[in-house]
Amino acid sequence: MEYAFRLDFKVRDYECDIQGIVNNGVYQNYLEHARHEYLLVSGVDFVALAKNNINLVVVRAELDYKTPLHSGDEFWIGLNTCQSSKVRFDFLQDIYRSADDKLVMKAKITGTSINERGRPFVPMEISGLFQDK
Amino acid sequence: MEYAFRLDFKVRDYECDIQGIVNNGVYQNYLEHARHEYLLVSGVDFVALAKNNINLVVVRAELDYKTPLHSGDEFWIGLNTCQSSKVRFDFLQDIYRSADDKLVMKAKITGTSINERGRPFVPMEISGLFQDK
Amino acid sequence: MEYAFRLDFKVRDYECDIQGIVNNGVYQNYLEHARHEYLLVSGVDFVALAKNNINLVVVRAELDYKTPLHSGDEFWIGLNTCQSSKVRFDFLQDIYRSADDKLVMKAKITGTSINERGRPFVPMEISGLFQDK
Amino acid sequence: MEYAFRLDFKVRDYECDIQGIVNNGVYQNYLEHARHEYLLVSGVDFVALAKNNINLVVVRAELDYKTPLHSGDEFWIGLNTCQSSKVRFDFLQDIYRSADDKLVMKAKITGTSINERGRPFVPMEISGLFQDK
Repeated sequence: MEYAFRLDFKVRDYECDIQGIVNNGVYQNYLEHARHEYLLVSGVDFVALAKNNINLVVVRAELDYKTPLHSGDEFWIGLNTCQSSKVRFDFLQDIYRSADDKLVMKAKITGTSINERGRPFVPMEISGLFQDK
Repeated sequence: MEYAFRLDFKVRDYECDIQGIVNNGVYQNYLEHARHEYLLVSGVDFVALAKNNINLVVVRAELDYKTPLHSGDEFWIGLNTCQSSKVRFDFLQDIYRSADDKLVMKAKITGTSINERGRPFVPMEISGLFQDK
Repeated sequence: MEYAFRLDFKVRDYECDIQGIVNNGVYQNYLEHARHEYLLVSGVDFVALAKNNINLVVVRAELDYKTPLHSGDEFWIGLNTCQSSKVRFDFLQDIYRSADDKLVMKAKITGTSINERGRPFVPMEISGLFQDK
Repeated sequence: MEYAFRLDFKVRDYECDIQGIVNNGVYQNYLEHARHEYLLVSGVDFVALAKNNINLVVVRAELDYKTPLHSGDEFWIGLNTCQSSKVRFDFLQDIYRSADDKLVMKAKITGTSINERGRPFVPMEISGLFQDK
């Protein structure tokens, strides 16, 4: 599969729980970091926008857990995007274990952009980014 | 709406991010804690099972973010369950802000139970729990 | 021992690591939450100050780990304060397991208050709070 | 300054709090990951030991916060070790911002190794490691 962006990671022991596998909530941290890095290289700065009261927020997350990651595993996240409505953007994110490219997770994260009054507001750098796809 | 189980929480400042709201990944922590507390009062001990190599794992999560939680907010999670297949169990979990019972999140978390070889294995205390619903 | 403030907690399973005990970094989360709750009931709002560019920050932490907390453990944190210099404040925080009041951790967290230029700046509500002790 | 081990990191946005800086508790996560990576390349596997009921645990942490890390900052951790008693080991860990090698944190983490009964027990691969220093 082809991805518009790819980021490499390694599991850290504090991310693993009593079962010896990465805790189910930690994957959303991984996915967020990959999205923000993708946005940054694409000219969209999550933090600078937040300081200007433009907040990129998640409105829906669908996560399919296929294979657990263990302590020491290296993995990578592939990311594609598509615009799902005038003000909603989908991030299609897949996680693979690096050793054998086994699928770890398939995720679809839907985000939007809101202004200080909580209303949808899509700044130009974001609309441009998603129209390109 | 009626729930089989309810648990009260309060947002902690370290759970909030640069935007001043609870980070999107933290909600899965809240949901997991509510599930484990529910299981515990129902006679299913997540940790004791893990020590016996029976692992309760999440296979799918659907999270709809309705209203963000802020620093200092009190909130509660209502939980219902249903058995979605012979070896899969759904937890329907809703998060409400306590001050006005405004809906914060609707979530459906699907879990299963696997043995040390990674095969589905449903111990009696779990099958009994879900058949009751 | 007498404390100026006390807060009750319960370990959540996602806070435990591969060893089945609360991860060493999580205790600082507990301690921060206790400090912020203490400050809040004392009239000092960490978040409101941050929005006005007055940041309460930790400059030193000393943590003595006495007994590990396990999944399901209830515990409480006792807190006392003292002013260690014109612009530094010590929080003496002890964690106890609730079942038997066994000491879990002794901590001394030193904080200061800085303005938007990173200079020490102690707002009145804080100087008043620590002078009382 | 010379270090026996060095590891590179980048701040992730979910590690930052309302103040826009890395939360004070997150630094212990960074430090732990650097220690475990150092141990691993030195032939000591934290997770494998835990599975054999030999637990490496932190008994004391001293953290001096010098400069906060911000969103997007790259940083590195330098690590040295010394044996502070027959059963205690010190990790001297310094964090530097990569852009200008400005000191972010000085930390001394003291650990020990305990067996399943909670008694100090130092396996050969650890005693060898620290005697070399």
